[in-house]
Amino acid sequence: MSDIRGAVLYAPGDVRFEEREAPTIVEPTDAIIRMSATCVCGSDLWSYRGINPVAQPTPMGHEYCGILEEVGRAVASVKPGQFVIGSFFASDNTCPNCQAGYQSSCQRKEFVGGAQAGRLRVPLADGTLVATSEVPSKDLIPSLLALSDVMGTGWFAAVAANVKPGVTVAVVGDGAVGLLGVLSAQQMGAERIIAMSRHESRQKLAREFGATDIVTERGNEGVARIMELTKGIGADAVLECVGTQESMMQAIRSARKGGSVSYVGVPHGVELDGAELFYAHVHLHGGPAPVRRFLPDLIGLVLDGKINPGKVFDLTLPLDQVAEGYRAMDERRAIKVLLRP
Amino acid sequence: MSDIRGAVLYAPGDVRFEEREAPTIVEPTDAIIRMSATCVCGSDLWSYRGINPVAQPTPMGHEYCGILEEVGRAVASVKPGQFVIGSFFASDNTCPNCQAGYQSSCQRKEFVGGAQAGRLRVPLADGTLVATSEVPSKDLIPSLLALSDVMGTGWFAAVAANVKPGVTVAVVGDGAVGLLGVLSAQQMGAERIIAMSRHESRQKLAREFGATDIVTERGNEGVARIMELTKGIGADAVLECVGTQESMMQAIRSARKGGSVSYVGVPHGVELDGAELFYAHVHLHGGPAPVRRFLPDLIGLVLDGKINPGKVFDLTLPLDQVAEGYRAMDERRAIKVLLRP
Repeated sequence: MSDIRGAVLYAPGDVRFEEREAPTIVEPTDAIIRMSATCVCGSDLWSYRGINPVAQPTPMGHEYCGILEEVGRAVASVKPGQFVIGSFFASDNTCPNCQAGYQSSCQRKEFVGGAQAGRLRVPLADGTLVATSEVPSKDLIPSLLALSDVMGTGWFAAVAANVKPGVTVAVVGDGAVGLLGVLSAQQMGAERIIAMSRHESRQKLAREFGATDIVTERGNEGVARIMELTKGIGADAVLECVGTQESMMQAIRSARKGGSVSYVGVPHGVELDGAELFYAHVHLHGGPAPVRRFLPDLIGLVLDGKINPGKVFDLTLPLDQVAEGYRAMDERRAIKVLLRP
Repeated sequence: MSDIRGAVLYAPGDVRFEEREAPTIVEPTDAIIRMSATCVCGSDLWSYRGINPVAQPTPMGHEYCGILEEVGRAVASVKPGQFVIGSFFASDNTCPNCQAGYQSSCQRKEFVGGAQAGRLRVPLADGTLVATSEVPSKDLIPSLLALSDVMGTGWFAAVAANVKPGVTVAVVGDGAVGLLGVLSAQQMGAERIIAMSRHESRQKLAREFGATDIVTERGNEGVARIMELTKGIGADAVLECVGTQESMMQAIRSARKGGSVSYVGVPHGVELDGAELFYAHVHLHGGPAPVRRFLPDLIGLVLDGKINPGKVFDLTLPLDQVAEGYRAMDERRAIKVLLRP
């Protein structure tokens, strides 16, 4: 078996596209995928920017879809030749946490890293991968790839914030996850969706996905605007899609008493004051999105043409230009970069 | 109108029973109650122990029930001669927060202080007080008084933790609120109720209220015991009824992935680490209990003999011995002290 090429982060700002050892079946529950498309995640930027330390050269990427090439002898639910999508956390989908719908806290979970490459080993294939009935046409690939993380995460943000028909939603963060949080809230019947964004191209996409209002202010000024728009009551549901102290407090303070705040961006240096949270009277729920829970339904919505989350990819590059993809996202020239092997 | 006597905290450990100005109708929405019984709250101990500063002599007590003596001209729903119960937060019961069931975050809320006295002024009487159809017999007074705070708070803890028939519940804290959280969980059909307590008299009452298991360990050892009892999964619902950093972390770490943690004790110095909360995958909800929401139903349960929350009062004193009441609770000689004017 030949080597493959993939993205490796050596140090902050230093992503290289280089030869790596080809993935092989290690456990009988493994599968090998030939990548149809992969992409750069907002969370990859934490390491790229040096906010997460880079201890050693690290294969990057955790979003993937493609054709199954090979499966271990214990894999029963998917077979070579099928088009499959999986989540960034492999899961057995049978343990009590999985059965409760929290596959990203599976008792046997494994992080799936190194997806910005031509081929990828996925552990626990039966519990992780979902196959489509046919190999999809090329134009559907971006939207199906989005389900691997950002769309599943935006969807979880809306579910965790109890979005229901008729409610008022505020979304903090205009990255791909925030924008797809808007789309998810729209799909779940929210009456009013306030997107907090100060970037014109992102505002435009937010409106396309269903945002009814745009708030450009941030922090406490942003909170004041949400209060103004909701007659001093606050939003029923607030989706926090960033992961910083400022965005988290902005979210909590924008919710009404008894309302819900979800948070799906990995928190960096976030500390919540118990007393403030106590008097905020909000429902708080979040964590790494259990994407696997939503995959079958979301694949259906994409194949039926009901959602088109692939619109968040506003830059497509060949995989060997992955370094430029990181730069474009770091400099906010692109919302999200799709990479084609 | 003569003066009244009531409890005033002068400094940590210094509660005096002394003459105070008699309460009068200030606003047309006020009411004056002649106290049938009042009591000492665990939260009163924060000031008594000097953890909350005592800036000036402060009339104490916020739990009350009694006979309505006088009402302002705007009061329409209750009338003199009726027996009434209210919450520690007066509420209009009409604003959007009240209508959402969060009367303790009423837009016009006022803290009702100075209830350890013979008479009490209650603001916003129409939205705050609930009358019984008849003046209840004396033996029911303790259980009706408990509804004013501890039982309503324990009930909210169970509601906020999504307790439902068949679930496994853990209760952190064996004060009156924790014990009544056990009773509430039992009423809501929990299958298994694990009370975390190391005091024999409290363990006994917990069992009487429906606890199926007792865990005496605390902190991470307590968490390990809960994990052992739940096959490594954690409890579906955890009720945090203390308000310290240790109890909060014990609660969060005892819940299963996707489970619920409620917190109803005023947090003192609690800081939640965003990243730990993220990976805990719990639903978090709490705050000052909207007791008013539950009063009508809980009064019904007491009058029908279905619950007897008054059992938490294991010491009854005449009101003029209020200082001894504080001492008994501070030294944990009593779970909760009832005071009779």
